[in-house]
Amino acid sequence: MELIYLDNAATTPIDPRVKEIMLPWLSGKFGNPSSVYKTGREAKVMVEDTRDLFAEFIGAKPSEIYFSSGGTESNNFALKGTAFNCLGIKDHIITSAIEHSSVIDTMDYLNSRFGLNITYLKTNSFGEINFDELTDAITPKTALISLMHSNNELGIINEINNTSLKASKIGSIIVHSDMVQSLGKVNINVQNLGIHLASFSSHKIYGPKGLGILYIKRGTKIDKFMHGGKQERDKRGGTENTAAIAGFSKAVELLKSEMKNDIKHYFGLKSRMINALHTELGNKILLNSYNDNRSLPNILNITFNPNNTNIDADTLLIKLDISNIAVSSGSACTSGSVQPSHVLKAIGYDDKSARSSIRVSFGRFNKESDIDKFIKVLKEIIN
Amino acid sequence: MELIYLDNAATTPIDPRVKEIMLPWLSGKFGNPSSVYKTGREAKVMVEDTRDLFAEFIGAKPSEIYFSSGGTESNNFALKGTAFNCLGIKDHIITSAIEHSSVIDTMDYLNSRFGLNITYLKTNSFGEINFDELTDAITPKTALISLMHSNNELGIINEINNTSLKASKIGSIIVHSDMVQSLGKVNINVQNLGIHLASFSSHKIYGPKGLGILYIKRGTKIDKFMHGGKQERDKRGGTENTAAIAGFSKAVELLKSEMKNDIKHYFGLKSRMINALHTELGNKILLNSYNDNRSLPNILNITFNPNNTNIDADTLLIKLDISNIAVSSGSACTSGSVQPSHVLKAIGYDDKSARSSIRVSFGRFNKESDIDKFIKVLKEIIN
Repeated sequence: MELIYLDNAATTPIDPRVKEIMLPWLSGKFGNPSSVYKTGREAKVMVEDTRDLFAEFIGAKPSEIYFSSGGTESNNFALKGTAFNCLGIKDHIITSAIEHSSVIDTMDYLNSRFGLNITYLKTNSFGEINFDELTDAITPKTALISLMHSNNELGIINEINNTSLKASKIGSIIVHSDMVQSLGKVNINVQNLGIHLASFSSHKIYGPKGLGILYIKRGTKIDKFMHGGKQERDKRGGTENTAAIAGFSKAVELLKSEMKNDIKHYFGLKSRMINALHTELGNKILLNSYNDNRSLPNILNITFNPNNTNIDADTLLIKLDISNIAVSSGSACTSGSVQPSHVLKAIGYDDKSARSSIRVSFGRFNKESDIDKFIKVLKEIIN
Repeated sequence: MELIYLDNAATTPIDPRVKEIMLPWLSGKFGNPSSVYKTGREAKVMVEDTRDLFAEFIGAKPSEIYFSSGGTESNNFALKGTAFNCLGIKDHIITSAIEHSSVIDTMDYLNSRFGLNITYLKTNSFGEINFDELTDAITPKTALISLMHSNNELGIINEINNTSLKASKIGSIIVHSDMVQSLGKVNINVQNLGIHLASFSSHKIYGPKGLGILYIKRGTKIDKFMHGGKQERDKRGGTENTAAIAGFSKAVELLKSEMKNDIKHYFGLKSRMINALHTELGNKILLNSYNDNRSLPNILNITFNPNNTNIDADTLLIKLDISNIAVSSGSACTSGSVQPSHVLKAIGYDDKSARSSIRVSFGRFNKESDIDKFIKVLKEIIN
């Protein structure tokens, strides 16, 4: 039974062309990029070429790109780096209630251990941040605003440049955005967004796990997070993960040439699923994602109407799994938690409804028949 | 011209058997271990099997093993995690002058940003830590002692259990050891060493880059360093680097079956080189590493006697590189620095002598002929 993988927001399969590029870096090309001899230098050149490529892709300068071990590290680096840099001077951070756990958990820590004050902006029922609240929330003590560009569970895209505009009017507030889910799904230009920091991850764009990127706008005051060697222009210590960087390079190259098609493909699959859901399940479902440019093209969050169904998402996932269909009840990063999704709670669902919700996320390798199969099995389970 | 790689302490080639095991995790087995469906579960099982295997290998419990992105992260996690955990209560840390940059740089930061007081223990001319100084250095405010098990530039092995003994006599002081270079070169039993925290890295044992391990003895009070999801029993967020963990698993399995032979092989190569150096270069060289159990079998640090040679290591490395021979002038992690090695300074060399020193480090794939070729080329360059 072939796997029908509809959880591409949790992690994507590695594109075979990415894997191919990685192989020499897992055998002959094993040098440490910090080493001065040939096998070290060839690794260094590859790392710098990748930096150039990605910088161009997101509208940054190469010197503004820093490699990390993943989206989670990039978020930790951004938040702790700026918070610690102004420790004792500014003690307030603004974020939203629907951020990824790597932001929420870091905020909780900065509050409990270092006494920083955190304001969580609210959202509407699709996860759109209320930017009117933002202006009121800013104080002279505000060091940082961290708002995700798109949400990993709902797919909603927030107009982050609103944030930058407001922050820039007030004064020297650093603006960070978690852009992990946006990469490859919408065009990104960090300069146009007016932000200072942005986090990205490789394993959400058909690249390998274990690699993240932090964009740091030139001049942004931020402490080092990973102390160690002089790697990454003395901003992030640790031997570079060369095989992963090589793979990421190919993944970005593929986005450059194929992203337009990918997006069209995602929207096609999403529309097909929405139509089928309406036809087959009618008023048994509620959609928590838009089907237009306000949402990512590849994410669809569905709540099974508690008034006329009695669906427990965890049980549903197990039943789908028996048919070798993979979807999730939210973020993989919170699935170890027994709590219902903090994102679904934030957009207004009670525990029961939040527990009756699933996230379907499409990828480059999904076919229309995957959607049809999913709908068929889902209908059988529900009826 | 075949590469003669004698810098295995900087990074090791990936063992072909390790690469082989990684391949399925770079294609079909791409699941996120936090996901509940089959492809996620199979990843989770592999991660836990690897944890069991490594725990047994170092005499720990599986629940005491935490995966990170590398030795640098493990050191950051250990040091910041314990320092922040007792912030405002204890403010003193003891370490040594010859630690890896990921320890030294972290200590500098903890001092400059958080006001912690750091004591650096001195060593003798081979890098052996003066444990008599240790007792005097301990104060009621001492939170942590961090001393490396073996030094990455000199190869010296320190009797860390002395530290643990002294610390345990005084009270609740946490003992950490950077064991990155020791893994696979000496038998390790963390329980016998009496330590609370120990750092390890995959890419020094023929495994992939991008994976580290922190041993945390049960009951040790330590803050999370990488905030995020509930991964690693809520102690380290971020999607697990499954391909790297699979590769590391094989690397450890190989150590289990081949470490004894590896060590014999390293000692053989080291003795061959020492003999040849004495025969061919006589009093032109000074050795900074022992050729017995006091030093790692695979590291040999050589200073070119400033009294009767005029060797600049950087120039020497370039000349060796032309013959496709790779050695280093110290740690790869400090090679971006323009300063001479802090380790060689700490053992008593002046700048000039420190700059006339190289580190040769042997690996599983070196042959005796590599040593002969190295000696031949070195002799030509020097004479």
